[in-house]
Amino acid sequence: MRQSHMLIPTLKENPADAEIKSHQLLVRAGYIRQVASGIYSFLPIGRRVLSKVENIVREEMEKIGAHEMAMPALEPSELWKETGRWTTFGSELMRINDRHNREFALGATHEEVITSLVRNEVKSYKQLPLTVFQIQNKFRDEARPRFGLLRGREFLMKDAYSFNESYESLDETYEKMFEAYSNVFRRCGLNFRAVIADSGAMGGKDTHEFMVLSEVGEDVIAYSDTSRYAANIEMAPVVTTYEKSTEAPGTMEKVETPGQKTMKDVADFLGHEVHQGIKSILFQVDDQFVLALTRGDHEVNDVKLKNLYDADMVELASEEDTKRLLGAGFGSLGPVNVPEEVEVVADFAVEALVNVSCGANEEGIHFKNATPGKDFEVTQYADLRFIQEGDPSPDGEGTIKFARGIEVGHVFKLGEFYSERMNATFLNDQGKAKTMIMGSYGIGVSRTLAAIVEQHHDDRGITWPKNMAPYQVHLLSMNPKKEEQKELADQLYDSLLEAGIDVLYDDRKERAGVKFADSDLFGIPVRITVGKRASEGVVEVKERATGDQTELEVKEIVDYIKNWYKA
Amino acid sequence: MRQSHMLIPTLKENPADAEIKSHQLLVRAGYIRQVASGIYSFLPIGRRVLSKVENIVREEMEKIGAHEMAMPALEPSELWKETGRWTTFGSELMRINDRHNREFALGATHEEVITSLVRNEVKSYKQLPLTVFQIQNKFRDEARPRFGLLRGREFLMKDAYSFNESYESLDETYEKMFEAYSNVFRRCGLNFRAVIADSGAMGGKDTHEFMVLSEVGEDVIAYSDTSRYAANIEMAPVVTTYEKSTEAPGTMEKVETPGQKTMKDVADFLGHEVHQGIKSILFQVDDQFVLALTRGDHEVNDVKLKNLYDADMVELASEEDTKRLLGAGFGSLGPVNVPEEVEVVADFAVEALVNVSCGANEEGIHFKNATPGKDFEVTQYADLRFIQEGDPSPDGEGTIKFARGIEVGHVFKLGEFYSERMNATFLNDQGKAKTMIMGSYGIGVSRTLAAIVEQHHDDRGITWPKNMAPYQVHLLSMNPKKEEQKELADQLYDSLLEAGIDVLYDDRKERAGVKFADSDLFGIPVRITVGKRASEGVVEVKERATGDQTELEVKEIVDYIKNWYKA
Repeated sequence: MRQSHMLIPTLKENPADAEIKSHQLLVRAGYIRQVASGIYSFLPIGRRVLSKVENIVREEMEKIGAHEMAMPALEPSELWKETGRWTTFGSELMRINDRHNREFALGATHEEVITSLVRNEVKSYKQLPLTVFQIQNKFRDEARPRFGLLRGREFLMKDAYSFNESYESLDETYEKMFEAYSNVFRRCGLNFRAVIADSGAMGGKDTHEFMVLSEVGEDVIAYSDTSRYAANIEMAPVVTTYEKSTEAPGTMEKVETPGQKTMKDVADFLGHEVHQGIKSILFQVDDQFVLALTRGDHEVNDVKLKNLYDADMVELASEEDTKRLLGAGFGSLGPVNVPEEVEVVADFAVEALVNVSCGANEEGIHFKNATPGKDFEVTQYADLRFIQEGDPSPDGEGTIKFARGIEVGHVFKLGEFYSERMNATFLNDQGKAKTMIMGSYGIGVSRTLAAIVEQHHDDRGITWPKNMAPYQVHLLSMNPKKEEQKELADQLYDSLLEAGIDVLYDDRKERAGVKFADSDLFGIPVRITVGKRASEGVVEVKERATGDQTELEVKEIVDYIKNWYKA
Repeated sequence: MRQSHMLIPTLKENPADAEIKSHQLLVRAGYIRQVASGIYSFLPIGRRVLSKVENIVREEMEKIGAHEMAMPALEPSELWKETGRWTTFGSELMRINDRHNREFALGATHEEVITSLVRNEVKSYKQLPLTVFQIQNKFRDEARPRFGLLRGREFLMKDAYSFNESYESLDETYEKMFEAYSNVFRRCGLNFRAVIADSGAMGGKDTHEFMVLSEVGEDVIAYSDTSRYAANIEMAPVVTTYEKSTEAPGTMEKVETPGQKTMKDVADFLGHEVHQGIKSILFQVDDQFVLALTRGDHEVNDVKLKNLYDADMVELASEEDTKRLLGAGFGSLGPVNVPEEVEVVADFAVEALVNVSCGANEEGIHFKNATPGKDFEVTQYADLRFIQEGDPSPDGEGTIKFARGIEVGHVFKLGEFYSERMNATFLNDQGKAKTMIMGSYGIGVSRTLAAIVEQHHDDRGITWPKNMAPYQVHLLSMNPKKEEQKELADQLYDSLLEAGIDVLYDDRKERAGVKFADSDLFGIPVRITVGKRASEGVVEVKERATGDQTELEVKEIVDYIKNWYKA
């Protein structure tokens, strides 16, 4: 394509609101422009990259027998009311009324629409399993859109839905999806991990998030340094075993700790290590109050607490409730003399402690030499803490490390959550009506594009992986006013096109410096410059990512490019 | 694709609300399903046909140097307020508020968004002309959605926008678009006409609608029986020349015509032909009252009246105003003794009349033997009537015929309507700021799909043109329970796929009758049936559209199909 009549506006400066590299570079290099907060236009080269991601996704979906379809963005509220999500989805769901005052949700996701379709059209086990997908813009009214394409309000997504006759069959579909997702992100040139995730409010069973490793990611992943194991830190079980201290329990006694609030303050004040203290936090778990104990150097994981009680809601008790129940504020709580209405639970690590300090439920007072079982009772010991770097990996292989990740995909065993509420049944081979077993599978297509840029850039711009670049070759004429340069570049442009190579041809009458800077920004993997040696038929070929460059005769170019892309 | 695990639900009966063939057949054959009034899901085979249309559109757009981009569906109201369309677009524009109460339009069209982008990013004549397009779902809240995909509320559209430095340059872009559109609809297998259309409220100059000829179309087209000329009937000039009657003017006299209201009533009552009377209709043209005269067998065309006065508004005068100004109601109006505040204009045909009848502005009274110029004055003669079948074609070639059409495309010279209101300027080669000259170009992608079905179906179902079918071959095993049939069909399926032929394979355990009926409904151009002669390696090949059938040996099939599609 000739650059002169193409809309690729480049900027020298980063946009004021762009905090991260992908946002900065995609705007500066003319891939996207903001239309409103969290809402973007994809300019022509941006659209091209988006199509590359789309096509990879489409190929991998079709390979596993999923069929593409297209559902509308306008979803009748009646369907969302059947599952209760009209209420529970909250203010992220955009809502709109038509001229007859019928309510619609603006497609944030399509479980309701597809379940409604399938319950009407699929009657027999013979038609199952069935997997469909679509690629389209989705809408979510984020409270604080940020990071460009990473957290937007309108974004391109692939969503897929599977309907199976049994959980075993769902497992098979899930496995295939898992592999397809791995292929997609591998082909996109991404360094990613499939991470065990929280099934949250969607009511499902297994779920994995596909996370692109990046320091700008909003999620923290715990992964094994030697195996494939990776989990959202909220989800990683702790398999450490703690050896009980052999110290003889001493006599618990009160000590004044005026103004000492944090575990570190108290430990320093009392002259012991942080792990020799007990951290006590009061939670409200549904209608019950629970005092959760961890070792001073550990953090309580409220998802584990929630699962322990099979609860709908876990939150920190209010300061008011805390003072009323325990008689002291947040910095002085402890497990000794706790009223009956408060249940005391503790992480396994606490069970191994002897002669440690803890709050005394009086302002500015702690106990020292406290020992569980002797000085206070614990209703239940459980795995209650967040995993930490250095902990053994839950799969038994290697040691846990932390990384930040950008969620680009999500595979989810929904089970019967939707099909039950919406009465999606089929007749099994015995002629008996059964509820369909569902799965849902999402890929953030535009977000994947941004994640690729986060992993593939340098100081000068983007460095697209081979598969992802908007064009395969960026052809520059250094000085198109010189007839021999213009002529050779024109000729090379034609022969590259003829050979089926995608070329962006910078035919603009701009200074060479501007052209080189723009070219580096764009990040097309190979640049061919027609310059001073044009009269000899020699041009310069440079790899964007490595900076390697070489001079070649024009007649060698087509083969060179084809081989480079094959390699 | 194996049909057994694909979502293609067929129906024996037409849906109750489906009045036209494309709606009936697309639903019955499992291409689409309604989600809400005017809102549809495209099921897998529907999505495939949609992609075929999309790809043809994309290819033809790229061929003329238009670049694909993607603008969001959420469009900030501020932009629409700049052009005034936030108000003038009316209730077809769907509107939505975000959580911070900012207003957005749900993309019905994107002139505002693209003009905003281009005014920010394009500064120099060197970057012009510039043409971009996108393919995406659009939203219009039709008051009465009907006819399935023909008049929906969410539909797939290609919209393109051009920015030029002059009207001459716009003319060139327009010509290219015109050709591209003709190619698109030709490749889609459509019988269509490019029709001169009304530029309406959009403030532009030239405009053509691409109309697919069909009796279910909502527009009437006047076209030449021998040339390419075609126009919306509102737009077609009348070039008939009328020879003045050589009869000597008689004496005008009043006659009673009690209860005679229509031209036909009066003519019969007075014993003359309808074309020997004058039809008089009072209009309000902006703030002025105009009595428009046509020959009794002609109809006044209010668009022509509007253009004659260069008016913003033309409507029938109210009964009240009519009585106040002329002293009589609608059936008895005439041009004699008209008060000064009413201007009398007449169609050219009236000028040639001698001794004709007309209303006398008294209830139940007409004049006979009235002659223009002698008995009443006309301020101006002009082309004021609708063209009729049998009139000479305005381009001088052939005779006018009428047809109904479905609008599938629209090319439009917008001029400066948007760029002026939104201040989209560029520096010309003299360094002077100039307003950009714009064009906009739409194709209803999903509507095109429906129009194809209107033109390509028979009693049994759809008969897709070669380019458009969801699959190239429909392969059926008549009785898959018979091992040799199943084996041969499986084997044929594999070899067709291997040869790069798109096959839908009906591997279902259904009765042959059901399979044949579904196959006819789907409309895939070639059907291959593996039946009784499977053991001899012989199958039946049938063309869907013609019904021609032949028996072939399996080893001949791949070549046969390839040649058939090449022909």
